[in-house]
Amino acid sequence: MDEHILNKFFEPEKVALIGATRTPGFGYGIPGFWKRHGWLEKAYLVNPKGGEIEGKAVLRSISELPDGIDLAVLMVPAKAVKGAIKELGEKGVKALVIESAGFAETGAEGKREQEEISKIACQFGMRLLGPNCVGVVNTELKFATIEIMDQALEKGEVGIIAQSGVFGNILLDHLPALGIRVSKVATLGNKIDLDEADFLEYFAQDPKIKVILLYEEGIQDGRRLIAALKYATEKKPVLVLKSGRTEFGKRATLSHTGSLSGEDLIYEGAFRQAGAIRASNLQELLYLAKAFTSQPRLKGKRIGVLTTSGSMGAMLSDALFEMGFELAEWSVGTLEKIKQVAPGWVNLKNPLDVGPSGIFGKALDALFSDPNPDGFVLIPVIPFAAIEPWRAIGFKMRDFFGEISKLRERVPDKPVITVLLGYEQFEKEMEELCGNAITVVHSPEMAVRVLAGLSAQKRLAD
Amino acid sequence: MDEHILNKFFEPEKVALIGATRTPGFGYGIPGFWKRHGWLEKAYLVNPKGGEIEGKAVLRSISELPDGIDLAVLMVPAKAVKGAIKELGEKGVKALVIESAGFAETGAEGKREQEEISKIACQFGMRLLGPNCVGVVNTELKFATIEIMDQALEKGEVGIIAQSGVFGNILLDHLPALGIRVSKVATLGNKIDLDEADFLEYFAQDPKIKVILLYEEGIQDGRRLIAALKYATEKKPVLVLKSGRTEFGKRATLSHTGSLSGEDLIYEGAFRQAGAIRASNLQELLYLAKAFTSQPRLKGKRIGVLTTSGSMGAMLSDALFEMGFELAEWSVGTLEKIKQVAPGWVNLKNPLDVGPSGIFGKALDALFSDPNPDGFVLIPVIPFAAIEPWRAIGFKMRDFFGEISKLRERVPDKPVITVLLGYEQFEKEMEELCGNAITVVHSPEMAVRVLAGLSAQKRLAD
Repeated sequence: MDEHILNKFFEPEKVALIGATRTPGFGYGIPGFWKRHGWLEKAYLVNPKGGEIEGKAVLRSISELPDGIDLAVLMVPAKAVKGAIKELGEKGVKALVIESAGFAETGAEGKREQEEISKIACQFGMRLLGPNCVGVVNTELKFATIEIMDQALEKGEVGIIAQSGVFGNILLDHLPALGIRVSKVATLGNKIDLDEADFLEYFAQDPKIKVILLYEEGIQDGRRLIAALKYATEKKPVLVLKSGRTEFGKRATLSHTGSLSGEDLIYEGAFRQAGAIRASNLQELLYLAKAFTSQPRLKGKRIGVLTTSGSMGAMLSDALFEMGFELAEWSVGTLEKIKQVAPGWVNLKNPLDVGPSGIFGKALDALFSDPNPDGFVLIPVIPFAAIEPWRAIGFKMRDFFGEISKLRERVPDKPVITVLLGYEQFEKEMEELCGNAITVVHSPEMAVRVLAGLSAQKRLAD
Repeated sequence: MDEHILNKFFEPEKVALIGATRTPGFGYGIPGFWKRHGWLEKAYLVNPKGGEIEGKAVLRSISELPDGIDLAVLMVPAKAVKGAIKELGEKGVKALVIESAGFAETGAEGKREQEEISKIACQFGMRLLGPNCVGVVNTELKFATIEIMDQALEKGEVGIIAQSGVFGNILLDHLPALGIRVSKVATLGNKIDLDEADFLEYFAQDPKIKVILLYEEGIQDGRRLIAALKYATEKKPVLVLKSGRTEFGKRATLSHTGSLSGEDLIYEGAFRQAGAIRASNLQELLYLAKAFTSQPRLKGKRIGVLTTSGSMGAMLSDALFEMGFELAEWSVGTLEKIKQVAPGWVNLKNPLDVGPSGIFGKALDALFSDPNPDGFVLIPVIPFAAIEPWRAIGFKMRDFFGEISKLRERVPDKPVITVLLGYEQFEKEMEELCGNAITVVHSPEMAVRVLAGLSAQKRLAD
């Protein structure tokens, strides 16, 4: 069987950069980036000016390239793209990322130019990603066709398919701070050949990818996308963010990636039917991604809540009600356990508000033994100044809140979300205490949106 | 004329802490906190055990207090509160913060106890804040009745009225990271005497407070609150967050601060009629607070958008449409100016997406001269790895984006909101470049919510 063409994009043996430059600008950063990550030795740089970049000799023309280039990355001005593709085709290159912009997104002339490019590539049996994109990232091999921050190259389980280049790149910049680690990224741009359906199918088969994120502006072949979505959602969760939902948004996507974004209600229905989970905004998409890499499905509607702040508990309760959840009844056994340790002013309700009583860990122990809740939200927020004197005499966060991440092992089949708010250092240490098996968010509403996503997830075979 | 009673809470000359302790716990941190900020010398500590705390002699009983105590802070167990109030009354103390919990929020018995306390205080003409609160903060004098982080004591222009103690405190912890600086805080707890109306009137008159934040769980005297809101909104913006909106939320507020939170639709109408601006969640409340300390009212619906990311521009466009805004038409003069500097692939639309062209500053210069928009949203997001090589050879953020905060002076009467997303260091430096006169948010949707808030603001006299 032939190798999948997308392997050439994500695991090339030899790669060529057409348009490498020695002066800052597009094409400048990549050679250095590749050098740092061991890719420059497998790379060929092309620029008519020749010379040397990062200690590597620069070829003056594509014709000087050796045979067997798996992937070529084009960073030349739009006008030079057509010629370059012909030459690459003649060299037998089958996989190409066109990062250059200035095609369909600029109007009729650009669209014509784009169509010609497509024809040429087709004649050579060449598969194209772009134009107007930044190509791909594969963190496992530390390979990328655009320079990104080292932090974003940490291996992870999220696959991202983003129509836009800059946006895909900004996401990569932003994710490490949220604790989201990526496996592979594809940015699509104007999609004259490879599109979201191709990458959905490919990512669905990739055992390293646990959840797929799809940012959509407009869809050319709706039937194919829906089929690909259905295929993918049978294997893993697929989260979708779609812009161009409204009149203004549609105009914006048209001038951005030349996409006709279509009627939103049709998309809404199609996404749902295909089993995809739609995020209503970027923040939600990102927190869902985080939750889906670590949390099990939410199998019911009954949520148990433990809080140190009555206000945050009330806000969470409002959000739970509005999204159709239930507040679980605590079992008699649970109430007995809490009574034994709680001061008199603690109300034995759900949300269980233990305030600054110091029984958070013990309460957690009791609640996690309760069979009633289908999932949990924890709100361990305490003013940092109030715990600082204790810390000065050796108290640790776990002394105030219990071994949260260890206790979490008691409910492996139920999602646990923590809402954190407060002093930066406090949030950081609490996040560490929660560990990777608990999803941390920063507002009651986001906790509930994440639960809603986990509740909408398909039951998957494995 | 008599001095306003609330002056005694915010600017006491002599303050007494009843329940100071030497061991970590409630009442432990305050003496140290007061010492660090120059308040211990004006303070009297009381504990039956006597001795010394932070080098200060501890009185064994309230009767040992000198005359002329302006404010007493009670941190004793609930059962000891009644006796302490009597003694303080006999000493002529007129202002009291009761931080102790265990009253109406715990049920019928607590409620009776609370009513007795109220009667006793009334007999002595004493005004009470609490119980079940953490009292007040006045950053100008670095005075607080609860220990808070030093960062939260930076002088600012936001006045906060929060029903809940822990929550008020957590807010204080969280605000510095958002760049929000506080003037005064009142936490209300069970509100057996002083309530939100008292503090609204007081904060409305305070020239140091530019915007008032009100977190509500339940309201006892609706008419009085609405009157106070009307009075306050004539003088400055009042932002309201109300929990207990739903069935679950109501139950939660009842067990939290003993509040009956009532019908939400009634509140909604009343808040609006009184000219208050209601935030739909905590994040929105905080970003609105930030915007209202630095941005002018939004006088129309036409928004101008400059972005480096087409995707973010599209998401913003969707959000603008959904909230009833318009995308401004750029004037002919503006388009001429942009054409002179922009590469061919830049679409002369609104949102104006200049991508990584490097003309952000010049475009901003042109857009800020355009008479059409009533307000602006900027989305200057560029992958950090792409600008790092430039930075290595001496380029600064302002070389990529222009002198954003200086250019902003050209549109003093129009709000300017910036959406930032990306690498942490990038966000930090961009935020500095934007300066205090531009409100920075972190999602397109929040930018539009902030504009909606600024659009709802009353026209104020001064």
